[in-house]
Amino acid sequence: MLKKCSLNTDRRDSMIEITREVRKFIREQRVERGAVVIYCPHTTAGITINENADPDVKQDLIRRYDELYPWTNSADLHEEGNTAAHLKAVAVGSSQYVIIEQGDLLLGVWQGIYFCEWDGPRTRNYYIKILKEE
Amino acid sequence: MLKKCSLNTDRRDSMIEITREVRKFIREQRVERGAVVIYCPHTTAGITINENADPDVKQDLIRRYDELYPWTNSADLHEEGNTAAHLKAVAVGSSQYVIIEQGDLLLGVWQGIYFCEWDGPRTRNYYIKILKEE
Amino acid sequence: MLKKCSLNTDRRDSMIEITREVRKFIREQRVERGAVVIYCPHTTAGITINENADPDVKQDLIRRYDELYPWTNSADLHEEGNTAAHLKAVAVGSSQYVIIEQGDLLLGVWQGIYFCEWDGPRTRNYYIKILKEE
Repeated sequence: MLKKCSLNTDRRDSMIEITREVRKFIREQRVERGAVVIYCPHTTAGITINENADPDVKQDLIRRYDELYPWTNSADLHEEGNTAAHLKAVAVGSSQYVIIEQGDLLLGVWQGIYFCEWDGPRTRNYYIKILKEE
Repeated sequence: MLKKCSLNTDRRDSMIEITREVRKFIREQRVERGAVVIYCPHTTAGITINENADPDVKQDLIRRYDELYPWTNSADLHEEGNTAAHLKAVAVGSSQYVIIEQGDLLLGVWQGIYFCEWDGPRTRNYYIKILKEE
Repeated sequence: MLKKCSLNTDRRDSMIEITREVRKFIREQRVERGAVVIYCPHTTAGITINENADPDVKQDLIRRYDELYPWTNSADLHEEGNTAAHLKAVAVGSSQYVIIEQGDLLLGVWQGIYFCEWDGPRTRNYYIKILKEE
């Protein structure tokens, strides 16, 4: 049970909530119990789980990441110039793991799953892999 | 094989070792081989694996995280004022994955599993999910 | 399906690509579909997934991590003096999870799997655990 999804971003840094897409795939596959992995195959993007209520948290995270990992650092060697984006990708991680129970994601009340792009705008992919339990 | 556990924290930042609780559940379920996921359903808390010998490592990590992610940052928009706690939660991650072999956690000698709270004191939950291998 | 691997590092900080070792084990075990976890049992080392094309990305990451987590911080309590290495280990994470599809790793074109040592030179181990799907 594997699904490849796509999305578009419209600026350099963005966090796009994908909880609904993950939940939809679990329901379509009628999985009662197990786990799901959301995987990002890009090296300047990643997946994280964080607050889904106040969109300001997302804005603060993006801005503070830019303070921690400034786009320009005169000692960087990488000629593409996007070393900061690679570092942010490592910081959030390339995948997230969520438990499935009673046919749904076992997320906390305020948790959402986010695709994070750090070198957009781009068209990107991610994978949803369900691990069904008998 | 899913267990919901609770704990209380008594200050703003804390790292509480939960290795014993995870190990106990594996033994109770008599799982010989597989894997276990420890999952945190909160957005200002997370799970990490690190040194279990010298408690000073924990203190240094908490203090250095506070230097990297200062509680107050005048540009933060989030009205609850705990943006730093959300960032620390993303930094450690919302889950950890450990292999089970010969009926026990395949941890390194110095590794312990920690629940990390970044906006306490609170009563919190975490899940232990065992993935048994036949 | 569990394999213990070893490697040697020759300096304090290093990122060693281990994608080939992981791929080899999957082929030897003739796994068509499932997932694989690469796990690091050390507390000053970890596993990450990032760019495998330009080696400068690796150099930039190592140098920028040293800026974020300086080796010397006068407030550190840990007597071994390697608090920075523990922090870097938490930052990259102790494991990575990759999907297996059609008998191979479902990595992105530019993704490689790296063992990261932050307090070498050392001889180190890591585990490759395959989760086969029927």
